[in-house]
Amino acid sequence: MHSAADRRQIYGLAAIWLLFILLTTTLPTQGEAHRPEAERSLRKLAADEWRNATKRAPGSVVPRPRVLVQANVHDYLEIEPTKFKLNDRLKEMCIIVTLASDRYSRGLLFKDVAPELKDRPELGKLKRVGHLSGVDLVPAGDGEFKCESVPHMNMDESYKLLIIGTKTLVGSQTIANNSSTTTTSDHGQARFSARIEANSSWGLLRGLETLSQLIFNVKASSQKFGIGLVEIEDEPRFKHRGFMLDTARHYISIPKIINILDAMAIDKLNVFHWHLVDDQSFPLESKTYPQLSKLSSFRPNMVYKPEDVRLVIIYAASRGIRVVPELDTPGHTYSLRHITNLLTECFDTTSNKPNGDFGPVDPTRASSYKIVDKLLHEFAQLFRDEYFHAGGDEVDFECWQSNERINTWMKEHNMSGNYEELTNYYMRNLYKLVKNHHKTMIVWQEVFDLKANLPTDNVIVHVWKNINDKPGYMAELANVVGAGYKALLSSCWYLNYIDYGRDWLKFYQCDPRGEPIAANDQHLVLGGEICMWTEYVDDTNVVSRTWPRASAAAERLWSSTDFNNPDEFLPRLEQHRCHLVRRGIQAEPVNGPGYC
Amino acid sequence: MHSAADRRQIYGLAAIWLLFILLTTTLPTQGEAHRPEAERSLRKLAADEWRNATKRAPGSVVPRPRVLVQANVHDYLEIEPTKFKLNDRLKEMCIIVTLASDRYSRGLLFKDVAPELKDRPELGKLKRVGHLSGVDLVPAGDGEFKCESVPHMNMDESYKLLIIGTKTLVGSQTIANNSSTTTTSDHGQARFSARIEANSSWGLLRGLETLSQLIFNVKASSQKFGIGLVEIEDEPRFKHRGFMLDTARHYISIPKIINILDAMAIDKLNVFHWHLVDDQSFPLESKTYPQLSKLSSFRPNMVYKPEDVRLVIIYAASRGIRVVPELDTPGHTYSLRHITNLLTECFDTTSNKPNGDFGPVDPTRASSYKIVDKLLHEFAQLFRDEYFHAGGDEVDFECWQSNERINTWMKEHNMSGNYEELTNYYMRNLYKLVKNHHKTMIVWQEVFDLKANLPTDNVIVHVWKNINDKPGYMAELANVVGAGYKALLSSCWYLNYIDYGRDWLKFYQCDPRGEPIAANDQHLVLGGEICMWTEYVDDTNVVSRTWPRASAAAERLWSSTDFNNPDEFLPRLEQHRCHLVRRGIQAEPVNGPGYC
Repeated sequence: MHSAADRRQIYGLAAIWLLFILLTTTLPTQGEAHRPEAERSLRKLAADEWRNATKRAPGSVVPRPRVLVQANVHDYLEIEPTKFKLNDRLKEMCIIVTLASDRYSRGLLFKDVAPELKDRPELGKLKRVGHLSGVDLVPAGDGEFKCESVPHMNMDESYKLLIIGTKTLVGSQTIANNSSTTTTSDHGQARFSARIEANSSWGLLRGLETLSQLIFNVKASSQKFGIGLVEIEDEPRFKHRGFMLDTARHYISIPKIINILDAMAIDKLNVFHWHLVDDQSFPLESKTYPQLSKLSSFRPNMVYKPEDVRLVIIYAASRGIRVVPELDTPGHTYSLRHITNLLTECFDTTSNKPNGDFGPVDPTRASSYKIVDKLLHEFAQLFRDEYFHAGGDEVDFECWQSNERINTWMKEHNMSGNYEELTNYYMRNLYKLVKNHHKTMIVWQEVFDLKANLPTDNVIVHVWKNINDKPGYMAELANVVGAGYKALLSSCWYLNYIDYGRDWLKFYQCDPRGEPIAANDQHLVLGGEICMWTEYVDDTNVVSRTWPRASAAAERLWSSTDFNNPDEFLPRLEQHRCHLVRRGIQAEPVNGPGYC
Repeated sequence: MHSAADRRQIYGLAAIWLLFILLTTTLPTQGEAHRPEAERSLRKLAADEWRNATKRAPGSVVPRPRVLVQANVHDYLEIEPTKFKLNDRLKEMCIIVTLASDRYSRGLLFKDVAPELKDRPELGKLKRVGHLSGVDLVPAGDGEFKCESVPHMNMDESYKLLIIGTKTLVGSQTIANNSSTTTTSDHGQARFSARIEANSSWGLLRGLETLSQLIFNVKASSQKFGIGLVEIEDEPRFKHRGFMLDTARHYISIPKIINILDAMAIDKLNVFHWHLVDDQSFPLESKTYPQLSKLSSFRPNMVYKPEDVRLVIIYAASRGIRVVPELDTPGHTYSLRHITNLLTECFDTTSNKPNGDFGPVDPTRASSYKIVDKLLHEFAQLFRDEYFHAGGDEVDFECWQSNERINTWMKEHNMSGNYEELTNYYMRNLYKLVKNHHKTMIVWQEVFDLKANLPTDNVIVHVWKNINDKPGYMAELANVVGAGYKALLSSCWYLNYIDYGRDWLKFYQCDPRGEPIAANDQHLVLGGEICMWTEYVDDTNVVSRTWPRASAAAERLWSSTDFNNPDEFLPRLEQHRCHLVRRGIQAEPVNGPGYC
């Protein structure tokens, strides 16, 4: 649906939107108007656009595939939902593929919303050139098909998706259907074929999702569906495309997490980073320390039991999503205060008596490491992913400073008054523990900033500070990879911070491998994570506040940097929002007046 | 639950929140933190508060009643939900009361969420002093009980709610239960009685809602409920307490509107201002002009049929909510372009030919008024409220300027180049039409600003500009009432504009009768309206984006100005959010970490 020539035609007016966005992003968002200044300006620039519904691009795909060729955007093959079949051509049964193909057949393919002709007169040009009865799922080339069921960092998510006339030569991205051939060949199904090719189960999953987005309603309020004649070659730009959910500031229910995993799969995100616990609550049931969820969960029914966690992991795995848990230490641990001999006791500095408060994990006592190790063991048992997020952010030194025993210990260990070094001491010990559990450690950037000097080969540094300050976070990222560490970026994707209007633009304009990262360091940037911290978010708004804004970030993590034009993305995002809504994701409007 | 002495005790730490709010509201909302600057400051100020869930005030009421006396906040009467009865003591059946009493009995009274003792040790002091088996609904005093079923501007919403020991003298707000008496009287139900007294069905409705909020879970995760011994005398400060919903920028479904009416009733709001149509869509089915909803609705199923409107009106009426429709003219009418001879034809100023675009209603042609009159007739048939919102905002002169016929007409009528006067000419004609339909006209403030000089006795001016600029909108309001017009305020309650964090504070700090309004003009301010414009809002997020932020405004519209302390309101708002959630309203978190 997106040949270069046709994009100009279809999205013509959209350029005005871009102009509008560029002109207005520096304006205050709250003008003296029922509609903000930005929108008033728009009405001057493109009254008709603003007065009608925002344009959508039916049959478009988010995130955009690496290569998508379509000779004639008006040609389509008709599909009858009740007769359409996904044909699994793998030699042996591959459970992930079987499950996915079942899910998509049962309806996920036919959830689109019809364009309204009155809004999109160019759709009147659509031309049925044939019929498509199914899509084959086939192993790619001669190599062995990897039927994997546990997603991992290096899984192969590439695929090809071909909807073609059988006479058409396939094999090169530059060869496409010639409409003069296809238009004369509407004599039975045999003239057209469709298949998804991949090297692994994961590639087939991603291809099926793309297929579901390619299919569109041909007419408003009808069950007539169609698909364009396209050739797609696709693979992700980044290996690690994450969504981080904080379930400690507010509890998020399992059904809602399941719904989030559905949305992640639609956006081809592949890591669910579960920020399980924090100061405010510890909603995970622990066998070793049952007091954690008993005393530090918000309510008895706001606890994740081991079977809940396993459900999340298996549901995620069948959608090609890894689950990486976080146990943040030594800070953000107030909810662990009911374990004795773990946290630092804080003292009143005038009376020199304990003030009843607790600080970070006490790095000076052996008991702390024993306790943390037991928790790590439990996490390692429950969460099987090779990676583990160990936190390490925002350690508050105040309590350590107040504690004389800690100060004495520091003097004895030649680090008097150097609380940064005390933090590093803790992180180095923690690193050894995590390694013993055969996990690769992810840490927030402070661990790098404070110079803990952990080994570069087994540690990933997660950059989060300088939120939305591009020069700031890109410099940090360049430093991190310059020092040889692998890195993840989140500074540009803190979706919990909300603004009025089209704030997805800033999420879309972030490139984890942009300037000033040296060319030969770029491979060290493994990807990034969208973050949803839940101070002001719970089941009532977590999905609508995250989607479809997350989809803008998801495209940046999957697609080529060549596709970075917001005015081309806007109608696809608008379409994608509707696709999400039809699939049961309460994605909110983000582009102005419209409908799904 | 709120004797002055006890508030200090219960809300002690809440003062720190206020300090925090005052210290941080000028800080940027996006700091370099997982949690924003404001919250980091809070952790320094009141680490324990921030580390735990936000405090709630179980059994508290929003909006706060005018007078609420409770001698001992720890004393409570136990209630068994299955045995609890609402006893209608009216002489004749009053349908609104019967329906309401049925609704509340069937469960609305027992929807609270238990406080967790670990968070609120002071609740350990709760003391059961008796049992309550029901509440009597009785006519107040000797006057005639007004059994009304159609809510109106001057309805009497006052009520008394008394939960008392039978030996206690009642009649003055200063007389309350003496706990030394009540604690010894737990020998059967007869020693305690409870009743709601009112002059009208509306008062009983409001009293029942208050009752539902007074009842609280006594223990976590139990079905044990209690109610404090309180004496309440309540009535609203303002007659017109509205919520405006725009259903033109996005369609809002009828079930969602019903849900919104439920939330309005909980907040004791009494006017649903339905901004039905606008430039982008005309979702109302019209008999006279069926092309409006056929050609200008977003989709065929995004249309309000007459029976839908009637459902909304009757559902609202049974909750004491008026429905005031808006047909905004002469601007914001692009969706009416399919009616011929109504809108202004715009011209290309260089070629002097029609450019295909349409401007506001053409005030110079008789046909315009005939058409508008027919629409007014339909609106008047469908919506029976005495008031009608006629719009009149943001008229764009550009199209009028381009149209030579209009310019010639203006010259002939001695208003060359004076497009303000052309607008006034239209509004004066519109006023006559509206008056012929026996409606009182509400108009946006531009009609006053442009000096249309409509009669003051039959027009209400709706102030909306200078959004969140208090000196600006208060000056306008003072001018409007100074000129003798009745007024409504919305400038401080544009809830569609969102900010990160606790932005309810600004909605709470707005007073429609504050400075510089002259004392003898204050009665002309009839109230205000919370506005939800839906450029970025539809079914997916309309409720969570509106509630509980609307509740802060609702308290300002109902309660005395004496209750304006945000730190006293915060734990009540937090409780109220949970009450809304339990009642099926997806109200989002607005105060920080916590749970319901």
